[in-house]
Amino acid sequence: MITRRNLIQLIGAGALAGAAAPAAADPEIDPVTGLSLQALSEGRRRGYTPVSTPNGRSLPFTMKDGVKQFHLVAEEVEHEFAPGCRAKCWGYNGSTPGPTIEAVEGDRVRILVTNKLPEATSIHWHGILLPNGMDGVTGLTQAGIQPGETWAYEFTLRQAGSHMYHPHADEMVQMALGMMGFFIIHPKDGNTDNGPPVDRDYAIMLHNWALHPGTYRPDPSIMQDFDLWTFNSKVYPATAPLLAKTGERVRIRLGNLSMWNHPMHLHGHRFWITGSDGDRWPRSSWRPEATHIVGVGQMRDFEFIADNPGDWAFHCHMSHHTMNAMGHSIPNTLGVDQSGVEDKIRSMLPGYMAMGKNGMDDMSDMAGMMGGPPNTLPMGGGKGPFGSVDMGGMFTVLKVRDELKGHADPGWYRHPKGTLAYRVSSDPSLVPTTTHKPDDQPGMPDMPGMNHGG
Amino acid sequence: MITRRNLIQLIGAGALAGAAAPAAADPEIDPVTGLSLQALSEGRRRGYTPVSTPNGRSLPFTMKDGVKQFHLVAEEVEHEFAPGCRAKCWGYNGSTPGPTIEAVEGDRVRILVTNKLPEATSIHWHGILLPNGMDGVTGLTQAGIQPGETWAYEFTLRQAGSHMYHPHADEMVQMALGMMGFFIIHPKDGNTDNGPPVDRDYAIMLHNWALHPGTYRPDPSIMQDFDLWTFNSKVYPATAPLLAKTGERVRIRLGNLSMWNHPMHLHGHRFWITGSDGDRWPRSSWRPEATHIVGVGQMRDFEFIADNPGDWAFHCHMSHHTMNAMGHSIPNTLGVDQSGVEDKIRSMLPGYMAMGKNGMDDMSDMAGMMGGPPNTLPMGGGKGPFGSVDMGGMFTVLKVRDELKGHADPGWYRHPKGTLAYRVSSDPSLVPTTTHKPDDQPGMPDMPGMNHGG
Amino acid sequence: MITRRNLIQLIGAGALAGAAAPAAADPEIDPVTGLSLQALSEGRRRGYTPVSTPNGRSLPFTMKDGVKQFHLVAEEVEHEFAPGCRAKCWGYNGSTPGPTIEAVEGDRVRILVTNKLPEATSIHWHGILLPNGMDGVTGLTQAGIQPGETWAYEFTLRQAGSHMYHPHADEMVQMALGMMGFFIIHPKDGNTDNGPPVDRDYAIMLHNWALHPGTYRPDPSIMQDFDLWTFNSKVYPATAPLLAKTGERVRIRLGNLSMWNHPMHLHGHRFWITGSDGDRWPRSSWRPEATHIVGVGQMRDFEFIADNPGDWAFHCHMSHHTMNAMGHSIPNTLGVDQSGVEDKIRSMLPGYMAMGKNGMDDMSDMAGMMGGPPNTLPMGGGKGPFGSVDMGGMFTVLKVRDELKGHADPGWYRHPKGTLAYRVSSDPSLVPTTTHKPDDQPGMPDMPGMNHGG
Repeated sequence: MITRRNLIQLIGAGALAGAAAPAAADPEIDPVTGLSLQALSEGRRRGYTPVSTPNGRSLPFTMKDGVKQFHLVAEEVEHEFAPGCRAKCWGYNGSTPGPTIEAVEGDRVRILVTNKLPEATSIHWHGILLPNGMDGVTGLTQAGIQPGETWAYEFTLRQAGSHMYHPHADEMVQMALGMMGFFIIHPKDGNTDNGPPVDRDYAIMLHNWALHPGTYRPDPSIMQDFDLWTFNSKVYPATAPLLAKTGERVRIRLGNLSMWNHPMHLHGHRFWITGSDGDRWPRSSWRPEATHIVGVGQMRDFEFIADNPGDWAFHCHMSHHTMNAMGHSIPNTLGVDQSGVEDKIRSMLPGYMAMGKNGMDDMSDMAGMMGGPPNTLPMGGGKGPFGSVDMGGMFTVLKVRDELKGHADPGWYRHPKGTLAYRVSSDPSLVPTTTHKPDDQPGMPDMPGMNHGG
Repeated sequence: MITRRNLIQLIGAGALAGAAAPAAADPEIDPVTGLSLQALSEGRRRGYTPVSTPNGRSLPFTMKDGVKQFHLVAEEVEHEFAPGCRAKCWGYNGSTPGPTIEAVEGDRVRILVTNKLPEATSIHWHGILLPNGMDGVTGLTQAGIQPGETWAYEFTLRQAGSHMYHPHADEMVQMALGMMGFFIIHPKDGNTDNGPPVDRDYAIMLHNWALHPGTYRPDPSIMQDFDLWTFNSKVYPATAPLLAKTGERVRIRLGNLSMWNHPMHLHGHRFWITGSDGDRWPRSSWRPEATHIVGVGQMRDFEFIADNPGDWAFHCHMSHHTMNAMGHSIPNTLGVDQSGVEDKIRSMLPGYMAMGKNGMDDMSDMAGMMGGPPNTLPMGGGKGPFGSVDMGGMFTVLKVRDELKGHADPGWYRHPKGTLAYRVSSDPSLVPTTTHKPDDQPGMPDMPGMNHGG
Repeated sequence: MITRRNLIQLIGAGALAGAAAPAAADPEIDPVTGLSLQALSEGRRRGYTPVSTPNGRSLPFTMKDGVKQFHLVAEEVEHEFAPGCRAKCWGYNGSTPGPTIEAVEGDRVRILVTNKLPEATSIHWHGILLPNGMDGVTGLTQAGIQPGETWAYEFTLRQAGSHMYHPHADEMVQMALGMMGFFIIHPKDGNTDNGPPVDRDYAIMLHNWALHPGTYRPDPSIMQDFDLWTFNSKVYPATAPLLAKTGERVRIRLGNLSMWNHPMHLHGHRFWITGSDGDRWPRSSWRPEATHIVGVGQMRDFEFIADNPGDWAFHCHMSHHTMNAMGHSIPNTLGVDQSGVEDKIRSMLPGYMAMGKNGMDDMSDMAGMMGGPPNTLPMGGGKGPFGSVDMGGMFTVLKVRDELKGHADPGWYRHPKGTLAYRVSSDPSLVPTTTHKPDDQPGMPDMPGMNHGG
């Protein structure tokens, strides 16, 4: 459970871990979890676990005559998907996704929205039950918020659950450029009718971006063939890991404002879907899952007991969505010996990069090296304790540990003796008869330079 | 609840509202709801609410020796997606979708099918439990119905629920051109084991069309990159609104014969999925939702209490699917000053239309004006009470009112005082301290010409 | 229920039926069901129905010191999608999908994996709860298995359910080329808490392949626009039928490692989804379905009572996915008289094939005849008892019969008198008054050469 005391301890630790949130300079925001001192204080006082937005942060509020007041500024932002890949996107308060709004069932909230974009916008409070005139659909329930204007939305929260905010004005363009955020409503009085409280609560937004290699602005006209697939607008390995202590109850609130219905897969654990943008679900409808589709415009609450220590992949199961740009629409040269040919083609077609003769494994971290187009990430390229992870995009690691020092990244998992897959022999003819197991972790000594353990 | 008395009152009112169904000339069909006098009479006598097919209609039947007999004619139809956009499609009885078949659990039905198409067809009764030889799969359970032939299907209905009919012959072509319809089976004796009766019952079919700009026939070879996305073969704003009185229980039966799994989102309400093409679902499995995926070949019953008065968007949440043609595959010129360039390009590339420098908002209703290709709708272009709605495609409005005059469109919602989002200031520097709320609806006076209220 | 006795009887019958599995030469494997004598013996002894993998087979094991040991060899395979269409794919033990691993809750298993591919690989045991070091994610939990090496994975099974194995190394390439298989864990002591035992248990893997017409290697860079859609790597009509005796309880375990979320539709029956890669689901969450989406990276257990005799289609409902290559991206010539034009175009564009003027129905079996590109299947082309079935791809037939002779294909269904759709008249003007029903099956005499009945 996150407490104020360990947050204060962690602000230093987080900076060391390097997982800097956009508002890292704000002393009221923990750069690791994105939690504000205010959210922690509210959560402790009113009996809930505040939400952590990995690579993001919660939005502070002020109280005005009993109304919780927030301020969102719609604006262009310079966004970094991962070191080496930046773009001019649209977001709120300097980031995409915008900061997470948190409140409690029964609260009256007022959200001021200032438009610093070059065209009109509005905000729809997705999934929230409110008066029709606060619904934010341009043309239907309000005029657009013109550039330079500030508007106010005000309503009382009649429900608890996982919700979103996003524009309902020039929808295709504004969402494609990154305008989105969470609106989380905690239950009043710690109501647990539809499930026990959680120890860790994460919120991750799924998105896709048509940032064509060599360009610096997402292309909103693309419908399917995207270049970047993100968790909170970051691609792996820039995605922050998720942490949990063994035995803790964890919730991951997944939102999707992309153009694909993403099947999300968690390794090593069973989870239940316990709620949606339609609020908490009755327990009779919960089902154990290993992979669940989070549809476009949906939120889904994934909940599980982190009962299996280790480093566990959490990712979209569509294999192209754990790749970065250039993972598709390239020539198929499997089985073709290309010695000498690639340079020749590249002299005619700048930026050309061929698939290898034997697969793409060797190419996972060489985009820069090969003189590929500028502002393009390698297709994959996380560095794990055992070498390269061939994935990018919608991928992160859930780190479950018996002990955790606050919210600092614990480093890589140290596998207990006898629990690692191991090399039996490099001579396949020996295999059927040679199945004894070495005493220690035999797969590891072959990996020079690996950073193993915390 | 729809009664015969108010239907008769409404046939005039409906004509005034202009939401003419294809069979508007038939005095037995209400042009607003598509209900027939026959369906109303049957529903009242046998204890169910008949189904309304917005922009469509129910299919009359005759009784022959205790068998309910329907007649479908498969044929080419001249279809209008919205004023300004027509195509030669394939459908039944002069329309796409074909008319809705309604019957009651226990009924014996005979459906005569006449083929006026240039190739063989058949009809599969999707989701209906029937003898194998009535299943309509060409080659497997019957020979194709040749051009000019009439065949009969006859079976007894052993279930209640939301089903479809469509060809199982040259499937890819015949469905892509619009051959589809509903087959709704009402429960016998008003059985309510799996949910109370509803006050309003709508049926909407989702579809996609590759009607390339400037052409007049849908292209069946397209797999993903469609131009038009429709509710009952209409694009917004040609889609009829859905009406409900405050407190009524409403069902929307959604079918999907497109090539995408569509996540459908309703504003301002919680709904439950209460049934599928596999019939009604037990209540223990119902879950509150704000967005639900209706997969291809699925039907899903959305049910809710219309407890929130206003004009509420109901749409697919994939942002490209609430756009019309030309919303994708156009050059990305965001941030590029194009003064003077577009005309030059258009002189070389007739029909060229650029995205704006500042987004697409300004373009939502200018396709005609700009000399775009013929037979192409603007990307969006509904007119709301507060100006343009930037959406087209799979979008409609649910109008919930404390009072309704039958089925006539009540016009736009009149928001009670203090329930509209409002402009605080056009000077953002004032915002943090200026949060008082004007007495009336300040956002509205700026919208000249708006048609506000009923 | 499958018994050892009828398996032995059937090994001959299966060979006659011609549905040869890749290991047909192995006398321990039934060529029809893919069941091994070992699996049958284990199932009988330990109280479960072993799994049949249509067009595939189960993987034999050996016992070593109380551990059930399996051996998988990752390698290139020459694969036949259907007669006339072959490709160099990647798989395990000579086939794609690889052989099905079957074990029982509580078993300790060791799986040896030998890599004969030209690049590193690993195996992830999808959905299985195991120690982190056995999870098979290259870079994160192990180094890659280099070409020529053999590694061992060893763990105890703590659950029962439907799972998969696939690489977690160069994921996009290795899965696109066919590396996948089932890992089925039967419940201990015949546990039936979450559903009664089934009489038939099938496992089918969904996949897509970019085998461009005229090429011989799947292209892994394709993200959506695939050429072949398969059940256990076969396209209809090469897919083996599913058999059931009237009244039997049947389970179909569907896995998906493609790039599309596939809505699977069963004719003539209601089914429930009773489990997933997250194991068995509580009965309170079961819902009757006719069509269910199996997402990428998901497994779903479809269960039903085969209570409706006949030949029933089971297929993906996306119409393009029941077509083979060339079903999309071809010119739209509907309504265009092309007499003489096609040959002219083909002289310039070898392999050109136009859509017909009247649809595609006539083209379903003419690819070879027309001089289309080599190594390409006709778009559809199953032969049914009533002529051509216009479908290919993800399609098979569930054959439900009152009597079955073991596992041999019973031939086509013989429809009882009065249960076939019938031609009323070829003169549509007669229809409304002529609805009497002939005494026998009038649609059939028109189909010369049909092979009707078993």
